Amino acid sequence: MAEGSDDIQALIALMSRLPGLGPRSARRVVLHLIRKRAGQMAQLAQLLDSVAQHSRECMTCGNITDRDTCAICADPDRATGEICVVEDVADLWALERGHAFKGRYHVLGGTLSALDEIGPEDLGIPNLVDRIQRERATEVILALNATVDGQTTAHYIADALDSTGVTVTGLAQGVPIGGELDYLDDGTISAALRARRRL
Amino acid sequence: MAEGSDDIQALIALMSRLPGLGPRSARRVVLHLIRKRAGQMAQLAQLLDSVAQHSRECMTCGNITDRDTCAICADPDRATGEICVVEDVADLWALERGHAFKGRYHVLGGTLSALDEIGPEDLGIPNLVDRIQRERATEVILALNATVDGQTTAHYIADALDSTGVTVTGLAQGVPIGGELDYLDDGTISAALRARRRL
Repeated sequence: MAEGSDDIQALIALMSRLPGLGPRSARRVVLHLIRKRAGQMAQLAQLLDSVAQHSRECMTCGNITDRDTCAICADPDRATGEICVVEDVADLWALERGHAFKGRYHVLGGTLSALDEIGPEDLGIPNLVDRIQRERATEVILALNATVDGQTTAHYIADALDSTGVTVTGLAQGVPIGGELDYLDDGTISAALRARRRL
Repeated sequence: MAEGSDDIQALIALMSRLPGLGPRSARRVVLHLIRKRAGQMAQLAQLLDSVAQHSRECMTCGNITDRDTCAICADPDRATGEICVVEDVADLWALERGHAFKGRYHVLGGTLSALDEIGPEDLGIPNLVDRIQRERATEVILALNATVDGQTTAHYIADALDSTGVTVTGLAQGVPIGGELDYLDDGTISAALRARRRL
């Protein structure tokens, strides 16, 4: 038994299955934590336990929260009539860090995928249509990833919302801020050129 | 509050301070864990808590263990009279993965460093000399890193052991297995050339 005890080995094995970590980085993290076992490690154990016990999905939008309704859905200032549809909670967090969107969200939890047999029901798209009608939303922003599956899903949702009369928009595509043309892929350059605007 | 709850934010902040992780990877790990909160996350919390509570240093060699004496020091088959001195528990684990050394270890916990004011007493080098005499060791292998501090420490320990009559050896330096000359640094190539052997 090279790594100290059965628990240490199990901990390394579990850590090495986390995204972005492998056996080597997991060993490094575990040794670092063992050195700080009274402080950082005990605190991490306690926080993981607390988050594991109290996290759940917001009943309205699917965001991760520790209440029935997340802080965004509970905030009356965010009832702007705009609903931003995202694939994933990570995308919601990314948009919130941008501080540009003041409305509410709807987390799909994935994209339509024929390969993985994920259909509209699995993503709760009928519920999204209901919610938009119930809340009398004025605009739905489809902030889905610019991948094939993301864009297929965006088109499907746009079609499903056609009869509701709500304005459906998507994120602009173009050159990222700070981006250098030489390093951009051809698709992005073409999209930016097609959507060029008068200065 | 972008990331769900205070606990989730605290967890991301704590995770992002682990070696090799930053804010982005910490968010990714935490979201992954929240998705698996009933299984992997609860298990991780439990293991971290258990390892934090039960880990300690082996009284003989300084290895991380959950007992007073680690499994290696407690194994009578490993009383070969050879003691391998390493900087760090990570180095001990690396040597154990190699399955080439059948003796026991001594973990220094660092290297001598004038800059960081780490002297021989801080590394317990007097205790190491005592242990070697008490256990009547026949060979001390200084498996310290091939850095300036590592080699300074190796020379200091070799001097300190001079009067004990024990054989003091160091790891061979040369071309790593699978290494390509073109990618090796000049120092390694010179060392490998100086220590060339007849085939």
